[in-house]
Amino acid sequence: MHEEKVALTKNQIAALRRAAETRSIQDIFVVACGGSLATLYPILYILDRETNAVHVSSVNAAEFFHNPPHRLGDHSLVILNSQSGTTPETVSAARLAHERGALTAAFTTVPGSAIETVVDFPIYYYDDPINPYPLLLSIFPEVYQLAFALVDLLNGSNCLPGMETAMEHLEAVCQRAVSDFAPQAREFARKHRTEQLIYTVSAGLDRCIAYILTNCSFMESVWRHSSPLHAGELFHGACEAIGKDTPVVAFLGLGRCRPVEERAVKFLQRVTDKLTVLDAAALDLTEIPEELQEYIAPLVLHSLASDFCLQLSHLTGHPMSSRRYMGVVKF
Amino acid sequence: MHEEKVALTKNQIAALRRAAETRSIQDIFVVACGGSLATLYPILYILDRETNAVHVSSVNAAEFFHNPPHRLGDHSLVILNSQSGTTPETVSAARLAHERGALTAAFTTVPGSAIETVVDFPIYYYDDPINPYPLLLSIFPEVYQLAFALVDLLNGSNCLPGMETAMEHLEAVCQRAVSDFAPQAREFARKHRTEQLIYTVSAGLDRCIAYILTNCSFMESVWRHSSPLHAGELFHGACEAIGKDTPVVAFLGLGRCRPVEERAVKFLQRVTDKLTVLDAAALDLTEIPEELQEYIAPLVLHSLASDFCLQLSHLTGHPMSSRRYMGVVKF
Repeated sequence: MHEEKVALTKNQIAALRRAAETRSIQDIFVVACGGSLATLYPILYILDRETNAVHVSSVNAAEFFHNPPHRLGDHSLVILNSQSGTTPETVSAARLAHERGALTAAFTTVPGSAIETVVDFPIYYYDDPINPYPLLLSIFPEVYQLAFALVDLLNGSNCLPGMETAMEHLEAVCQRAVSDFAPQAREFARKHRTEQLIYTVSAGLDRCIAYILTNCSFMESVWRHSSPLHAGELFHGACEAIGKDTPVVAFLGLGRCRPVEERAVKFLQRVTDKLTVLDAAALDLTEIPEELQEYIAPLVLHSLASDFCLQLSHLTGHPMSSRRYMGVVKF
Repeated sequence: MHEEKVALTKNQIAALRRAAETRSIQDIFVVACGGSLATLYPILYILDRETNAVHVSSVNAAEFFHNPPHRLGDHSLVILNSQSGTTPETVSAARLAHERGALTAAFTTVPGSAIETVVDFPIYYYDDPINPYPLLLSIFPEVYQLAFALVDLLNGSNCLPGMETAMEHLEAVCQRAVSDFAPQAREFARKHRTEQLIYTVSAGLDRCIAYILTNCSFMESVWRHSSPLHAGELFHGACEAIGKDTPVVAFLGLGRCRPVEERAVKFLQRVTDKLTVLDAAALDLTEIPEELQEYIAPLVLHSLASDFCLQLSHLTGHPMSSRRYMGVVKF
């Protein structure tokens, strides 16, 4: 029943790729706010690893609008993301990018929304907590497919089909992981029921999901203090604030940054009694081709981390949708 | 008595500039750890604003070494920073950059140290808490002079002399600010004596000094929890964790990101009773040419913020040099 939507989004990505092909794109800016910015980070990370044909920067939309980079212009592709399509900072950033001559594209769940009227290419994704769509239609799988479409464009490669197939398996892989780790998720909730602060620690592509866990889950949804510490930075200042009673969630990925994360985990095992490690090496990624596992593992860890926070929300009777400011007061 | 050192560092910057002139530099990577990475951030910020001739990225040294960007190569300039000259991650990153054919330079306080043996160009700075050198010889003034030397190289401009002159006045401006705000610093210490967590909030170039305040002052030196929140990101998740009793230090700069920071301050004034605002508009910057004030104001705010934390350290009898892990245990 969702074939039409899947075909539509693939066509939207293909249309953007064709437009980018007609320009000499030198810079890509990913621009949004909060979780919507973090979900674009894989574009930066993957292109930084896979090609030398383009520079990618990640910028908060308000900062981008008020203080645009000098390089923004005809040779720029600006990729935005606004779930509602109306985030004021992101719409303003899109308009500015368009005025400066950049090629513009925006992810959004709302066809016809403000941002669609401003950008050259919309890319729809689908997100309805009440009647969930297939995970394939959610933001991350689409971002990954766009990233690989751009890799193919810039390198003359043909990597997108492999990523498309892998993304079709993502939902099953994530569901299995959440099911396998359900006891650990409940245990996490029990242990952190009354904790006021939970740090996250990560490096590499895990930075994306650690930011989401800190910003969107712990801070926004369950009102706990947090900070997304970089595993390599930890040893140069931040570690001194961590004691035996400091809760930390540390990520271990499969990519080349794993040694950076492992060093942090070994240190944290010694200094805090409240360490939770989410290790991609413990995941069953059978359906994912080995060469893509380092890129896709963070998405599975993200499912786990989200469930860990959801269990905390359930146990404490603080719904994930509770807000005291966002959508409640004007700011 | 320090004329020789001033002349030496100017010559070191000029030598790097001449070497960069002989190459077609397309990418600059600033690479270090912790406070040493944050102090290089102005290179990224200033070049992003002033030129479209180069792309600048800031990367933690451990991540850079384990997972180098695809673009790293002959057309790269890699600028490192290690106070001791021996930071293992930074020395490894320097070696890798050199092997990949990049032009390399490193700031360090120790002539002849490990990093100097690896890079093409050392740039010395001077830092001795016991017998302080003139501020002109410390890391920030030198970083700013290098940034403007690179702007001149890339744009064919002649901005460096103005920045050099401004930097000669920086110490007097900072001393006056610290003196003017001494009552506020003591008040900050009194109010935050028992606080376990203090957030920082900033945008634009203030991100550099907010990271240092969070990472090096609050976390490393006085063992408080903290996170360097982005003023534009605040509204998209993090704000929900902030209540009436949450301490926050918010920065207000003079540059184009001031509206982003002002919006955060207005919000924070409503939601927390424990807000401290460090506002560059309240500073006396008489000696600094107006067109440079937006770049230099953060350095003056940094002096203030450091003094605020120092007063907290004095009041609580927790010396700024206290460490429980760094230099104490192996990791």
